[in-house]
Amino acid sequence: MPDGEPNESFVVTPYEVKGRIDYARLREQFGTQELTPELRAKLQLVAGGDLHPLIARGIYYSHRDLAPLLDGYANGKPFFLYSGRGPSGPLHTSHLVSFDLCRWLQARLGVPMYIQITDDEKFWARAGLTPEETRKWGLENLYDILALGFDPKRTRVFFDTRSIAAMYPLAVRVAQKVTYSTVKAVFGFTPSTNIGLVFYTALQSVPAFWPSWAEGRSVPCLIPCGIDQDPHFRVTRDLAEGLGYPKPALLHSQMVPGLLGDAAMSTTGNAADNALFLNDPTKTVERKLKNAFTGGRATVEEQRRLGATPEVCSIWALWRTRFAESDQKFAEVTQGCRSGRLLCGECKGQLIERVHAFYAAHAEAREKVKGWAESTIVTAPPRPD
Amino acid sequence: MPDGEPNESFVVTPYEVKGRIDYARLREQFGTQELTPELRAKLQLVAGGDLHPLIARGIYYSHRDLAPLLDGYANGKPFFLYSGRGPSGPLHTSHLVSFDLCRWLQARLGVPMYIQITDDEKFWARAGLTPEETRKWGLENLYDILALGFDPKRTRVFFDTRSIAAMYPLAVRVAQKVTYSTVKAVFGFTPSTNIGLVFYTALQSVPAFWPSWAEGRSVPCLIPCGIDQDPHFRVTRDLAEGLGYPKPALLHSQMVPGLLGDAAMSTTGNAADNALFLNDPTKTVERKLKNAFTGGRATVEEQRRLGATPEVCSIWALWRTRFAESDQKFAEVTQGCRSGRLLCGECKGQLIERVHAFYAAHAEAREKVKGWAESTIVTAPPRPD
Repeated sequence: MPDGEPNESFVVTPYEVKGRIDYARLREQFGTQELTPELRAKLQLVAGGDLHPLIARGIYYSHRDLAPLLDGYANGKPFFLYSGRGPSGPLHTSHLVSFDLCRWLQARLGVPMYIQITDDEKFWARAGLTPEETRKWGLENLYDILALGFDPKRTRVFFDTRSIAAMYPLAVRVAQKVTYSTVKAVFGFTPSTNIGLVFYTALQSVPAFWPSWAEGRSVPCLIPCGIDQDPHFRVTRDLAEGLGYPKPALLHSQMVPGLLGDAAMSTTGNAADNALFLNDPTKTVERKLKNAFTGGRATVEEQRRLGATPEVCSIWALWRTRFAESDQKFAEVTQGCRSGRLLCGECKGQLIERVHAFYAAHAEAREKVKGWAESTIVTAPPRPD
Repeated sequence: MPDGEPNESFVVTPYEVKGRIDYARLREQFGTQELTPELRAKLQLVAGGDLHPLIARGIYYSHRDLAPLLDGYANGKPFFLYSGRGPSGPLHTSHLVSFDLCRWLQARLGVPMYIQITDDEKFWARAGLTPEETRKWGLENLYDILALGFDPKRTRVFFDTRSIAAMYPLAVRVAQKVTYSTVKAVFGFTPSTNIGLVFYTALQSVPAFWPSWAEGRSVPCLIPCGIDQDPHFRVTRDLAEGLGYPKPALLHSQMVPGLLGDAAMSTTGNAADNALFLNDPTKTVERKLKNAFTGGRATVEEQRRLGATPEVCSIWALWRTRFAESDQKFAEVTQGCRSGRLLCGECKGQLIERVHAFYAAHAEAREKVKGWAESTIVTAPPRPD
């Protein structure tokens, strides 16, 4: 992959990401809209004058129906945010891409945030995990997510196996509108897929419709998510009208490449060294980053002369998605890399410092949320019914 | 159907019953065991000396693994009973076939009874019903069932949309073991089946495994049900071992023929006059029974001379399943019919009296259970988990 050319045969579904992804072509395949400079400017205006780095640096690059949602907000019609996590193990840094943006949007716009923890889905989707394990990871992951700085008063959590009494009455209505042929086509299910996974997309639609259902009025929803999750919400959007709820708007990010050079920082079927886990000890962080795949040249001399390729580099991806503290720093790293001034060892050293600082601050914040995390979990339906 | 010959092309599934059923052949098709005289004698002994009319008169005719369950009971290993109802509307008398037997077994053996109310399934299976309607009928049906005389202290109810917090953790484990190809083969689902119905069989297995799961020990289960429900529990039985729970035993009844002469007293796609509803007013009961299909002859003269055919008669089926208060009365009606002594009008008149008496007593009992029915509904999982 030295030239960063996209592979012809990439695959992106909620259950598989492989090959080198051509994001522009993926957007066309999925039929989503481009996040244009005009739309970014509109968001900038609504958000109070600047843009989150994940948007400024192009990681969020695609959307569905964002413009009317922002226009509505500007005209006094609030929306809410929804994103989720399938708890198969500890979070890694690429999982923060949607939650970092949500936290920023919540802080800027004062909107509610709904977080779904899909412990049932992970048990159904992933052989070798017990329900006890996915439930345990669900709570651990929730602590990490909340510790990013969500507002306890404006954040509600749908933790599937713990919130099912609240979610099921709405899930029953959703499931009745979805046929097996739809989920087969959208998710590529086969006859050997278990019936839990077949049913599951009904639950993933629930938070998107929840306040409209609970409050009996139309409440718009914005879902920031990896573009691999778009198929789930395509089902949700197709159902919305028939159920009398607004179609959720989507904001899609690219996948964060894995430390071993894979298309996505996933450890499904991969070595744990492909991802930087939030619970990795200091020494593990150092080892993983020092061994990480970069866009560097074969020799120092060559790199000084020709420069390196940030676009294929897993270290550059980390600077880009989270660890460059300013646009200036991000430009400095990018230009240093491309010009050959900044060598990989030096670049990794600077990144490692920042990762350590984040992990230390995060561990502290994480302890604090434990006191109130449980109170965010929705356990009762909105009305006795 | 004058000669009572079984139709070659009958169909029996949980979602369809049609044609004139050859019950012996159906038992062979389903691969169930015959309820032999030896096994009935064993049950009689365990139950304290006599048999319930539904068994004595051959309505229960098939089983799976009944013998080891009864032997276990005789040797001090108790079991529990489980049966259910899909609440699409008011109960009719054929729905009492499983609950009447359960009530008798509970009274004789002192065993717990689990009742499942599948309001979610009925919404998924039946177009034109809202979730509010199936839930409302669920409670109405529950009153009718409990009013048959179940013991409040030994009866627990799994009311799907109200008990889901309790059921879901176990349903998640069950669903992971069932593939789409299994439910497709067993229930005849098609690509246009909704994903709720695809998932549903996981919930129907839950009560059968519940005490084994909740108490962490093997608790045998006996499910008296119409033979049309056998496919659901074939799935349940196939799963049991993999989950570490005992296979439930089954006791299968024949279907009660409809008042219009159909194979089953169902009103799916049929006139309401096919069934005798427990909430039918006195005059409606009279009209329906007076118009009911019988095994009588074209003229009184012919019937006096040749006798009538009880086996095809919907009125005789009511005597047989519930309304003949003694074996003597049942023999009297059957012989009277066959010999031509008892004409259809007289026979119907005698039955109508008994139906009225039952409805009056039932209405009174039904008012009394309303005070404690809610307390039987399981709403919490057995442990916080």
